[in-house]
Amino acid sequence: MDTIRVTFEPEGASVDVTRGVTLLEAARAAGLVLSSICGGDGICGRCRVIVETGEIDVEPTTLLTRDEIQRGFVLACRAKALGDVRVSLPVETRSADAKILIDEDAGRFRALGEELQEEVSFAHDPVVQKISVTLPPPTLQDNVATQERLLRSLRREIDAPSLQMGLKVLRDLPLVERESGGELSVTLGRRGGTTEIIQVEPGEQRGRSLGIAVDVGTSTVVAHLVDLDTEETIDAEACYNSQMAYGEEVTRRIIHSERDEAHSLRDAVVRDINNLVSAFIDRSDVALHDVVVLFAAGNTSMIHFLLGLDASRIRKAPYIPATTAPPPICAAEVGIRINPRGLLFTMPSIGSWVGGDVTAGILATGLDVTDRLTMLIDVGTNGEIVLGNRQWMIACATSAGPAFEGSGVQCGMRASRGAIERVSIRDDGTPELRTIGDVAPEGICGSGLVDTVAELFRTGIVDRVGRLVRDRSSRVREVDGRAEFVLATTPAGGEIVITQPDIDNLLRAKAAIYAGAKVLLESTDHGFDDIEQLLIAGGFGNYLDCGHAIALGMIPDVPLDRVRFVGNTSLNGAKRAMLSVDAFERCHTIARGATYYDLITYPRYYEEFMSAKFLPHTDLGLFPRAAELAAGAEAGGI
Amino acid sequence: MDTIRVTFEPEGASVDVTRGVTLLEAARAAGLVLSSICGGDGICGRCRVIVETGEIDVEPTTLLTRDEIQRGFVLACRAKALGDVRVSLPVETRSADAKILIDEDAGRFRALGEELQEEVSFAHDPVVQKISVTLPPPTLQDNVATQERLLRSLRREIDAPSLQMGLKVLRDLPLVERESGGELSVTLGRRGGTTEIIQVEPGEQRGRSLGIAVDVGTSTVVAHLVDLDTEETIDAEACYNSQMAYGEEVTRRIIHSERDEAHSLRDAVVRDINNLVSAFIDRSDVALHDVVVLFAAGNTSMIHFLLGLDASRIRKAPYIPATTAPPPICAAEVGIRINPRGLLFTMPSIGSWVGGDVTAGILATGLDVTDRLTMLIDVGTNGEIVLGNRQWMIACATSAGPAFEGSGVQCGMRASRGAIERVSIRDDGTPELRTIGDVAPEGICGSGLVDTVAELFRTGIVDRVGRLVRDRSSRVREVDGRAEFVLATTPAGGEIVITQPDIDNLLRAKAAIYAGAKVLLESTDHGFDDIEQLLIAGGFGNYLDCGHAIALGMIPDVPLDRVRFVGNTSLNGAKRAMLSVDAFERCHTIARGATYYDLITYPRYYEEFMSAKFLPHTDLGLFPRAAELAAGAEAGGI
Repeated sequence: MDTIRVTFEPEGASVDVTRGVTLLEAARAAGLVLSSICGGDGICGRCRVIVETGEIDVEPTTLLTRDEIQRGFVLACRAKALGDVRVSLPVETRSADAKILIDEDAGRFRALGEELQEEVSFAHDPVVQKISVTLPPPTLQDNVATQERLLRSLRREIDAPSLQMGLKVLRDLPLVERESGGELSVTLGRRGGTTEIIQVEPGEQRGRSLGIAVDVGTSTVVAHLVDLDTEETIDAEACYNSQMAYGEEVTRRIIHSERDEAHSLRDAVVRDINNLVSAFIDRSDVALHDVVVLFAAGNTSMIHFLLGLDASRIRKAPYIPATTAPPPICAAEVGIRINPRGLLFTMPSIGSWVGGDVTAGILATGLDVTDRLTMLIDVGTNGEIVLGNRQWMIACATSAGPAFEGSGVQCGMRASRGAIERVSIRDDGTPELRTIGDVAPEGICGSGLVDTVAELFRTGIVDRVGRLVRDRSSRVREVDGRAEFVLATTPAGGEIVITQPDIDNLLRAKAAIYAGAKVLLESTDHGFDDIEQLLIAGGFGNYLDCGHAIALGMIPDVPLDRVRFVGNTSLNGAKRAMLSVDAFERCHTIARGATYYDLITYPRYYEEFMSAKFLPHTDLGLFPRAAELAAGAEAGGI
Repeated sequence: MDTIRVTFEPEGASVDVTRGVTLLEAARAAGLVLSSICGGDGICGRCRVIVETGEIDVEPTTLLTRDEIQRGFVLACRAKALGDVRVSLPVETRSADAKILIDEDAGRFRALGEELQEEVSFAHDPVVQKISVTLPPPTLQDNVATQERLLRSLRREIDAPSLQMGLKVLRDLPLVERESGGELSVTLGRRGGTTEIIQVEPGEQRGRSLGIAVDVGTSTVVAHLVDLDTEETIDAEACYNSQMAYGEEVTRRIIHSERDEAHSLRDAVVRDINNLVSAFIDRSDVALHDVVVLFAAGNTSMIHFLLGLDASRIRKAPYIPATTAPPPICAAEVGIRINPRGLLFTMPSIGSWVGGDVTAGILATGLDVTDRLTMLIDVGTNGEIVLGNRQWMIACATSAGPAFEGSGVQCGMRASRGAIERVSIRDDGTPELRTIGDVAPEGICGSGLVDTVAELFRTGIVDRVGRLVRDRSSRVREVDGRAEFVLATTPAGGEIVITQPDIDNLLRAKAAIYAGAKVLLESTDHGFDDIEQLLIAGGFGNYLDCGHAIALGMIPDVPLDRVRFVGNTSLNGAKRAMLSVDAFERCHTIARGATYYDLITYPRYYEEFMSAKFLPHTDLGLFPRAAELAAGAEAGGI
């Protein structure tokens, strides 16, 4: 058999394989895990690679655009190497380490759902639901039209002053009635005062009524499959947002969208969502047909991209979005593949830079109904902060950058298997590590980075301005004129280091969040001591050592018993809104009622930001407990 | 040059033409006028013929379905004869004699619009309208999203508690706002309590806001183009309903529809409507884009066909339609080509056999608001009758058959150029005729048939049971054992005759209408003398000699000053509803409030029908004025 060589760029990893194997198999042989949900069946379209040189045999696919094909894209699972081949792995393919990680993530998110405070409850009354009705048979005496008989029967079951139905349902109705003898299963979608009949089916139809809540994050897309009748979360799945290929930061993506006639941003996230939906369908006994609603929460730009709305003015003064309350639409209108008549709801935004994910967070945490002064910090690429209670709410967004998500960091990676998530440093300077999945370390994620820098500061290896102090540890060294701390060694003999620029990035990120929190407090004449509840949200928050975060000056120095991690509140809020018309209505009240506070217009913000770039802050009086907390963390060990 | 022969079936007309001419040119050379609106440009798709044998050269077209092409259909204007060809003319192509007639019809309908009583008035407030709004520029202080700024501005202009917009509009909005600097032209569609934003355009857009009202008749489709702002009727156009190819009677078409997976009925009428719309666009300065609404009135089955709804139960006990109040939809959903976001409204029906055309008639004549006891008879293939006033209304349909529309009659034709429309017979038995267009007679239409039979009866040539009496006129003769009356001679030497079966058909038709009227009266304990207004509607009604109609016993014998022709009230009502939300709302009140009276369930109907088959009736006491009226008509001459 012929042996050929496949080389993967930019790693330069090479592997000798038998002529005719797929590029996906070759990648696996080279120790690279490409993104793939379908496992190589050519369905999910995630294992996209670019063939730079070499002869391949490619099967046709509809999962690549004409433009992508011209740029050399193939699906690795559908491309066989016929000679020596050089392949480039695009960032969205390379950065995801596939199904294993997604399962990890899914497991985490599954657990998160249980953690939330349950004081916020709404009547179970899903925005989309199936109900059974029986139409009495028509007679010469009661020869009312089929549509009117259905409306009459429905009005006996539900309170719906305005009932609408479209042409497709009207076409189906007489046929379904005849087929079923009048026993109908009717799917209703509700918004405001209007109830729309989305679908009529024969009553004996056994299918469940399912919905999917999706957190469309800047970096990660997370989906929960929910039984709309029992409220049970059946499955969870996550993947990276493929829009990453167009920029890690929102602003970069907006700039891309302005000249993006191919709607690549929309297509990317729709493909991600469809892949998550496919994953649910593939591994369970649910039918696509039974998924009748998808409920998306995301920042304002993410929702604009998803719906294909013009986002350009979000980044330019006076920073206005096309909409803060998009109407529910047919999911198929944007290419989302659930039931063809299923609806897509999106959570209403508070402003251009405080989106429906934050509205969802407020709903999920009950910030809008509590008497206690509460601060909610959603840690992510954009750190959003809400301050308020049942009387008032004010919200802002900080451009924290991707450091918390393990990006823009030399050895950074997302919080997935192999990532260092917890770090403590012994007094002799030796690090103790814990990785996700308890495997050999491959890189460091946000929470590990927070731990490392807090510990380096505590042990004096990093000083108050964030500089690595060379003579405090033998692990500090200089490479090409740049200081770095050697944290660990990988099994392959590589080193995981924290560089001076990594620390600078993290300090900028934590300073942005802290300064935002401080400005919000000041603008409402409050101090940190007034905060009665401090809620930290986000996938990241799950793994965060709260003491370290305070020691670093990332979150305000409030007593630990007032701090609570609340997990992915964006997803949780979306799920609640999906399960209750009242909750969704409440979201609109929240979005309208919260004041959007634009930090850019506030001159003090930059000043606060600069002051917060120290460890923990220029003003140590703001962090009375910081030293003690850092010590506590050390005492606790790992 | 080669000469070839083209033969047209079923006429058997042949013509020798140069090889390579189109079948449309060949037909013209053969003296046949094929239906064609575009004049042979391959656009209107009306000149459809079937090539039975022979070689032709055909240009590709999208105006024929795959199935039609397989059945041999070509567009005559796009098919060149290359050898001897035998061509079949389908009924819908043959029966229409094209543009000349349509212009005639359009002229008539134009005139009709002016004749109506104007006591019924509604506030001008079209169901679809364009309004101008100015969005204040966003500022850092007022950085409300574009959608919300639009809604805010609209709410200042109009009273719309529930304002909705779909994704397409939301996608356009920011771009249009930027392009226009905030001066927007917004198209709003309204139904019930909901107002939908259909379209946003830059404010300087010059286009008008136009609507089309359509009477979708069993035989004829009539359209008026209306300026929604000025209420002016700009143009009128009519054509035959191509569904005729699938049966002249509604029941036949329903039977066809039950196995019609190709939706040929829907396609036929949609094509007709699109052709009428194209005709408007072709000959005026209006843009398709400016036509934002189409308002259709028709009997319940016609509307079911148009919308593609299951009509099968309309013809089977207990006779229920899919709907009596179809929702407004996007016209593009059924393939109607106006503005891609334009709406299609349909008038609500009273019952399976009393449709939105009758609702429109009630609205147009103000039957529902008058104190006077009024009977409205809409004469057509289905003669609908309404009796009532502002207190109550009852309506029925009679199966009159197509005799009044000149069909099912040996020398019958539709009321178009060359049709004998008025007849009187001198005492010596010589007929005096008037034809439509004052040209040589080609056939006889419904009104001519009514005149003829009434005059034959008055002069004793037809007896009380409707039999031609042989010895009363030399024009009565027997052919193949069947009596007929020779009315006229065509220029080509043919004869226009009225046969005994023609008379029998007419008597059945007039008996059906009369019996329906009588049953409605009896069922409400009224007699003919109680009728304070007798309104005759329909295209047919325009040409009807009222005295003759009474003399024949077709309409009740009430004093002539109580009888009024009100023209095409279906079209007129649709136009009013299109121009006023209140009027459209009233239509729903009318449709819900009127009682549908099913003659089939009433045993006395058949008895009345049999009694009414005499001239004018078995009970002469019911027609005290009949003889006198007949004499008056004679005295008036032509």
